[in-house]
Amino acid sequence: MLATLAVAIGLAALRVQAHYFGPVFRNNGFGATHGASRGAPLPLPAVYESSGAVLRVDAARFRFGIEGNTCDILEEAVRRYEALTFEPAKLKACGGTRRDCDPGECLSQLRIRLRSPCEKWPSMHMDEQYTLKVSTESKGGATLSASSIWGILRGLETFSQIVYYDCQFLVNTTSISDWPRYAWRGLLLDTSRHFLPKTTIFETLDLMAMHKLNVFHWHIVDDHSFPYESARFPFLSKNGSYAPDRVYRRKDVKEILEYARLRGIRVVPEFDTPGHMQSWGRALPGLLTACRGASVWKMFLDLPEYGPIDPSREENYAFLRKFFGEVLETFPDRFLHLGGDEVDFLCWKMNGDIWDFMTRQNISSFEGLQAYYMNRLVKLLDGVSSEKKNYLVWQDVFDNEVRLSPDAVVHVWKGNWETELAKVTNAGNAALLSSCWYLDYISYGTDWENYYKCDPENFPGNTAQKMLVLGGEVCLWGEFVDETNLHSRLWPRGSAAAERLWSPREAQDADFFASRMNEHRCRLRRRGFPAQPINGPDSCDQRKKSFLYDSICGTNLCLSPKR
Amino acid sequence: MLATLAVAIGLAALRVQAHYFGPVFRNNGFGATHGASRGAPLPLPAVYESSGAVLRVDAARFRFGIEGNTCDILEEAVRRYEALTFEPAKLKACGGTRRDCDPGECLSQLRIRLRSPCEKWPSMHMDEQYTLKVSTESKGGATLSASSIWGILRGLETFSQIVYYDCQFLVNTTSISDWPRYAWRGLLLDTSRHFLPKTTIFETLDLMAMHKLNVFHWHIVDDHSFPYESARFPFLSKNGSYAPDRVYRRKDVKEILEYARLRGIRVVPEFDTPGHMQSWGRALPGLLTACRGASVWKMFLDLPEYGPIDPSREENYAFLRKFFGEVLETFPDRFLHLGGDEVDFLCWKMNGDIWDFMTRQNISSFEGLQAYYMNRLVKLLDGVSSEKKNYLVWQDVFDNEVRLSPDAVVHVWKGNWETELAKVTNAGNAALLSSCWYLDYISYGTDWENYYKCDPENFPGNTAQKMLVLGGEVCLWGEFVDETNLHSRLWPRGSAAAERLWSPREAQDADFFASRMNEHRCRLRRRGFPAQPINGPDSCDQRKKSFLYDSICGTNLCLSPKR
Repeated sequence: MLATLAVAIGLAALRVQAHYFGPVFRNNGFGATHGASRGAPLPLPAVYESSGAVLRVDAARFRFGIEGNTCDILEEAVRRYEALTFEPAKLKACGGTRRDCDPGECLSQLRIRLRSPCEKWPSMHMDEQYTLKVSTESKGGATLSASSIWGILRGLETFSQIVYYDCQFLVNTTSISDWPRYAWRGLLLDTSRHFLPKTTIFETLDLMAMHKLNVFHWHIVDDHSFPYESARFPFLSKNGSYAPDRVYRRKDVKEILEYARLRGIRVVPEFDTPGHMQSWGRALPGLLTACRGASVWKMFLDLPEYGPIDPSREENYAFLRKFFGEVLETFPDRFLHLGGDEVDFLCWKMNGDIWDFMTRQNISSFEGLQAYYMNRLVKLLDGVSSEKKNYLVWQDVFDNEVRLSPDAVVHVWKGNWETELAKVTNAGNAALLSSCWYLDYISYGTDWENYYKCDPENFPGNTAQKMLVLGGEVCLWGEFVDETNLHSRLWPRGSAAAERLWSPREAQDADFFASRMNEHRCRLRRRGFPAQPINGPDSCDQRKKSFLYDSICGTNLCLSPKR
Repeated sequence: MLATLAVAIGLAALRVQAHYFGPVFRNNGFGATHGASRGAPLPLPAVYESSGAVLRVDAARFRFGIEGNTCDILEEAVRRYEALTFEPAKLKACGGTRRDCDPGECLSQLRIRLRSPCEKWPSMHMDEQYTLKVSTESKGGATLSASSIWGILRGLETFSQIVYYDCQFLVNTTSISDWPRYAWRGLLLDTSRHFLPKTTIFETLDLMAMHKLNVFHWHIVDDHSFPYESARFPFLSKNGSYAPDRVYRRKDVKEILEYARLRGIRVVPEFDTPGHMQSWGRALPGLLTACRGASVWKMFLDLPEYGPIDPSREENYAFLRKFFGEVLETFPDRFLHLGGDEVDFLCWKMNGDIWDFMTRQNISSFEGLQAYYMNRLVKLLDGVSSEKKNYLVWQDVFDNEVRLSPDAVVHVWKGNWETELAKVTNAGNAALLSSCWYLDYISYGTDWENYYKCDPENFPGNTAQKMLVLGGEVCLWGEFVDETNLHSRLWPRGSAAAERLWSPREAQDADFFASRMNEHRCRLRRRGFPAQPINGPDSCDQRKKSFLYDSICGTNLCLSPKR
């Protein structure tokens, strides 16, 4: 990472240059508290210098010129960004004649220089660095250059944001040097509590790309439904899905993986065990622990009929080996999320066979039983995978003192996360932070400032510990979310977390972020996404330059000012 | 209103018959806590008897037969309800061959008997009563009959809800006698904080009709923007709107009035004065009070530049007379909402001219000045209107002891509403309740139970006082709402308030409501509206009959149950 100095200089330069082009809203009760920026990117780049000079852009003749390596990812991206950068919606008439660009007068080209051959799949620690220059000297074109295809993708998104429309396409002379602060910048979707149509997932991947989020954490199954089609065990989705057409077929999963790949987004699936498995049990008798039995105690406890997986049955491990063997073949990412949260120990406690098993195995606590299960699971996973795999677990597993492999990643989601991150990293494990980014928790008003302020580095620990925090994830649990409200609930609230994960730590100016968020919301709307108005009264595509109190006497009744 | 006995009998009969047809979700952590009803109406009718007998419906040959009076409203409604009742979405294949109806075998007709000629415009105290009968004897048809066109509209909506689809169109034999508990069942939209496209307003009117809500309270202008086009004062919207295309032109207003009329919905506009007028001031210098002046006090107070209207200038009353003269010509409803909330007395206090005026007029308090203004306003309104008008004011006006005409309606929106309703009705004024139905206040989870429980009758008062409560309104203030999130935020949360306002007081069974709400959400979705999943994990169009734990041994790995 660059020295803090360079970053500080970059940001200082930016602050000097940054001024709000949009309508200035007075802070006396009307208008958004902040104006909207124009042609400013979100997330904020690591080094971002923008002068006051504005170049016209020749939208009609603009060319994305690939000058270095190329591949399918890049060709496809150019097609996408041609459309995104010069959205038809921007071409709304603006009063007055639009002046076309004389040849050579305007910016007419983005030269794309990919220095290395493309990789096929995005990966942990992929290189996402790029530089983007738009200057008056480069009247022949702006330049985007990166070592890897992933950097090119990030840079294309930035370019599409700094070009803006104000009666014509414009761009400020700009020099950007950019790379992410955190390698793991994720979004969790829960497709079990509510099935999400494939198109909704595609749209979310597009929105993630617009925020440089690079991990789609697919919490694909859970208690409520099992929409994942397993070829080896088709009855899992036949019995466990909400309906036959609420299933992700093998082909659908492939399409989602491909859609993500083309956007430089990793897909990390989560098959949460040993709890959260009710829907699995509908297909597999004997898989889950029966909670109730003859004991009189059970009449007094409010137990469900079935609980976590039954860790005492060998058949279950045989099943898991076959099931996960297929999972590992289906999802190419090196990382697999094993879940492990909220295991109902009480259910295990009520089952006599479990007690017997624990006695035989010399397991003295239910945490120990969970540990036994997790160890068996990891062992069988290692047995079936042809390459080295890494696993993530929710913090519950770590908190229950299940001994983890040193390369296991602990996903922190509960309160008091600063203490938890300190513990996890002190134990030498890597961590992800989600605790402050549960966006399913909605409340009235402008609630994103806490998302923006939350910093995964803000815990007591040394530099080595801080380095163990890989990043974090926005979580949108699905109890109250489906395609009717998903996008509006996630954006632009999620934009605050996206910036925190990408931009330098020094990006702390919430006012400046708000102005870019206001522009960004309108940008997302123009691109066809229902990003909601989280910052109060406003309007996209405003063309009024000023709302100052004018003296207008064009009416019958002309009131003369009293003073 | 029918005797409580008849209602009680009706509801008792309903409870005997009501059972949840839909998938039964076990309450052990997965599935919605309540199933979904099938073919049950929302809001609950006053008298609703439904037997277990199910009739097939001949969708292909179905006829809405107008046998009594008719008019444009009815013809248009029949076209609408033909489509709504037999939505294409319902025709999804269901496995197995669909058995067509032999002639005469199924229900093939709804006989519509409108006993009186149509009225043109909906009005306060319009007759909304209807009876709807579907029985095996009426194999020739079901019967909908009402004295007024508004009753027919309500009955058509109910009919479209009791017909349901389960591989074929079905309807239970049903006898309904229905009328609203409250005459004023409103929804407030705020088109100033965010402009709402005309189509969004049309969609909202459609959704209101689906809930038998009958007053669209159009909070059309406010501080933030002035989207209402006045022909007499075009600069109000030219200067005050967010943008030229964020305006309701004269033609747009007419279309909205007509769209509402055809659905039996009254449009009651609100032009909120003397506060909430910042956007007006952009066109009319001298209209608003200048808050700041030479006084040293002002440096210490955080005052805006301009405040409420300046009540000391005669020119302002001349303006208001001309402006409201046009308003009264534009909006045909007898009722006009004058606003009157949150008047910034501090601004008036800081203006020396205001003090002088008060001295000259012998007004000793700012409440008195507000009263002076309100009285001037009402007087000029009465002067310009050709027919008798009724006015509504927010409770602030009443609380500030502005003496109101006996026929003024007080709109209660603040906390402690039980006490307020008692005071208002004790003073002899009619009232509307909104305090518990501010749906812009969102929070995590299933939050509608309070909307359902809130009862406008629950305040200390005698029968005469209770009769003075005309009804209530759901309010969706627009600070954080525009077309990206409006429908999902309003529905089906608003359905709880809609039932409270229409259905008998005895409709208190929240579980039964929840099951109908679950069906209703899916109904709204099938009709093309993004009603959100407010009741937890669920799925629309589920076709699984049961999620009971089956023993399935169709897999390679057949786990034998342990017990």
